[in-house]
Formats: sequence, structure tokens, C-alpha cells
Amino acid sequence: MQSERFALGGADMTEISATNITWHEGHATREERQTLLKQRGCTLWFTGLSGSGKSTTAFTLEHLLVQQGRLAYVLDGDNIRHGLNKNLGFNAADREENIRRIGEVTKLFADCGVLTLASFISPYRKDRGLVRKLHDEGKLPFIEIYLNTPIATCESRDPKGLYKKARAAVDSGKGMGFTGVDDPYEVPTSPELTIDATNTLPQEAAVQILTYLEKRGLILPR
Amino acid sequence: MQSERFALGGADMTEISATNITWHEGHATREERQTLLKQRGCTLWFTGLSGSGKSTTAFTLEHLLVQQGRLAYVLDGDNIRHGLNKNLGFNAADREENIRRIGEVTKLFADCGVLTLASFISPYRKDRGLVRKLHDEGKLPFIEIYLNTPIATCESRDPKGLYKKARAAVDSGKGMGFTGVDDPYEVPTSPELTIDATNTLPQEAAVQILTYLEKRGLILPR
Repeated sequence: MQSERFALGGADMTEISATNITWHEGHATREERQTLLKQRGCTLWFTGLSGSGKSTTAFTLEHLLVQQGRLAYVLDGDNIRHGLNKNLGFNAADREENIRRIGEVTKLFADCGVLTLASFISPYRKDRGLVRKLHDEGKLPFIEIYLNTPIATCESRDPKGLYKKARAAVDSGKGMGFTGVDDPYEVPTSPELTIDATNTLPQEAAVQILTYLEKRGLILPR
Repeated sequence: MQSERFALGGADMTEISATNITWHEGHATREERQTLLKQRGCTLWFTGLSGSGKSTTAFTLEHLLVQQGRLAYVLDGDNIRHGLNKNLGFNAADREENIRRIGEVTKLFADCGVLTLASFISPYRKDRGLVRKLHDEGKLPFIEIYLNTPIATCESRDPKGLYKKARAAVDSGKGMGFTGVDDPYEVPTSPELTIDATNTLPQEAAVQILTYLEKRGLILPR
């Protein structure tokens, strides 16, 4: 990634006027970015147990949206826990700070105009409530999508073997604070959308969320 | 911000097939978002003393880019220090963590395809170097823009009265660790661009940075 290095300053005004740019007062606004993107920036917050289908649904939806020319972006454990939040652990305080930071970042993305898809277990009602409040204060749409796939289904999938590990930890008397096994998952009280991934294909869920976004006017005709 | 609440699941497949969507394998890619936006996501990192013109230049450039149909977004003290980093102070460790988090967030924005403008004093070479490294690892362009406006100019402007406060603090023997007064500013060794705002209008600087982005192929013809 080589780049040219040169110094600015003492600019030639004829060059400037030659660019034929009309200068407008003030800052770029959220509305201008929305007009440009033909969509309203918002946050879709996928919450649910490990293995409930959050990330699969989020990535399927992201793919569908981008195919349709929409700017969508997934934030999940992979790009957050190894980056922004790599200095956080899994105790109560760190879990709270984890969700708080993600909440602030989704708010920035939504403000920028992006259809922001956040996929995190986010087991505590209070933490999710704070993220919603952040968005409400910023007049940015926050859409909580609850994956209410039964734990039996999640556990039978167990793609990373985490439930097995958690059960073994509990059996040995140590425990590991795993959501749904020995740490609570607090069910959302009024999510905008609820999906049971047991009987819903990710593609079906994605299309239904897309329809919801259109109905709410968050995706505008192109 | 009222919203409709309904449950998904047990979806009607005729509805799905009626949407006439062709499903593609895999995730949305950075390249797809770049094609969609006609630009390559990157980070423009404005560094320099307080009052050197970082934010004015960044906002002027953002405005110009958005007027031209480009997705650009400024991250600065206002939307970061009151949000993501509101739990950080100004001691050495917190300053380092401040820049680290901002670095991770700019990387996410750049990955999403946004022309990301970061405006922070960021006085330490090591911290800026880490942000550059993050971007290099992610194969994302990082453009360091050094506002080398002399401190005399910055101090004569002093829009927030911070230099006056810092000088008074030093005179009283306490000090306040203010960059350029009683805390060092480490000059960039190889910034991609250098701007002296003493003799350069923000509009001139913005046009020159825009030209640079075009030359580097970060902005593609629309």
C-alpha cells in the first residue's frame, strides 16, 4: 500500500476555482447521507442464546441487502472481540462494558447511514435497554430482533461445542457462567421482531426482516 | 419512533418465492460494498495541535465529499469522548486506550466502505503507529494528515481558551498536561499529507485531499 507523499499549503487559488465546486455552508447532515444512500441508518440488534441463529440470520440479511444495493454491515464477536473489545473479559462488569461500547459503535454507524446489524448474545435486559436508549436519544431507529430458538435446539446444534463444555464445567462443580446453562438469558419484553430459527430458514427470516425495513420506511425506493 | 411488532417463523414459502430473489452463497464482501459505493473505504487520520485546523479541515472535506455523492463520516472528540470513550480520562494509559479504540472503530468504518475522517490531536507517534498497523493488517488504506500549523498560530486562535488555561496552569506550578504546552506533540515522521493551516483555507485543503484520494484510486468515477 504505497502512497504518494506531498505537502499542501500555499495553494494556488486558480486551481481551486478551476474545480468548479460550489461551497455550501455548514456540515454534512444525516439527512444528506440518507438521501445519498436511499436508506435510513438504523441498528438491527440480534439477541439470543448461543446457537440460536443470530449471526447466520444477520449475515444472510447483510448479503441480501448488499445484493440489492444497500449498505449493510455486521458487527459480531469476530470483528469486535478481537479488536475494539479485546481488552475485555467475561465477568459481569466486562460484559456490560462490552455491550456499552458496541452500543456506542452501532449508534455511530447508524448515524453514518449504515443498516447496522449487531449480533451478540447480549443476555441482560438492562444492557440492551441502554443501547436502545442511546439510539432513542440520537433519534436513530433501534430494532431488537429476538431469536427465541429453544435451548434444546441450540444445544443440539452446538457448532462450537460450547454447551458440551459448559455442561461438563457445571457437572464438575466449577461452572463457566455460560448463558442459558449457568448464567441467565433475560428474554426481551418487547422486541420489534421475534424469530424461532427451529422452523425458519435464514433466507426466510432475512426476507421478512427486509419487508419490515421497507414497511418502516428505513429502505427507500432506489 | 413507533414500530410494528410481529412474530416471524413458520413462514409461508410462496411469499418467499414470490420475492424473486436469487440467493448467492457466502457473505457480503468488502469489494461488493466498494462497487456499490464507488469508493474504497479508508481512514484519513488528521493529527496536530489543538487549534491547528484538524476538525475544520475534516468537516469541510466531509461536506465536499457528501455533496459529491460520497459516503464520508467524521469521528472526532464530540462524538467519541461523549460516547464510546466517555469512561476515559486524560492520563497516559487512558490517552493510549482512547486512540486504540478510535483506531479499531475507524478500521470497522473503513472495512464497511466509508471514507472515514478521524480528527484527534493524537500526540504520540506510537499510538498513531498502532492505528496504522491495524489498518495495514486489515489491508485498509490509512492516510495520515499532519496539520503542522505553528503553535503560535494555534495559540493566537485558541477558540476554546485552552492554551490560556494551560499557560495559567503552568505559571501556577501545577500544569495540566496540555499538548504543546506541558505535554509533547510528536511530529509525524512520514505523514501522507502535510497541511499548514496558517496560509491554507479549509476549502483549499479539502480540494487538495480530494485530489489525492482520486489519484490513489480511493474514489472511483461514478
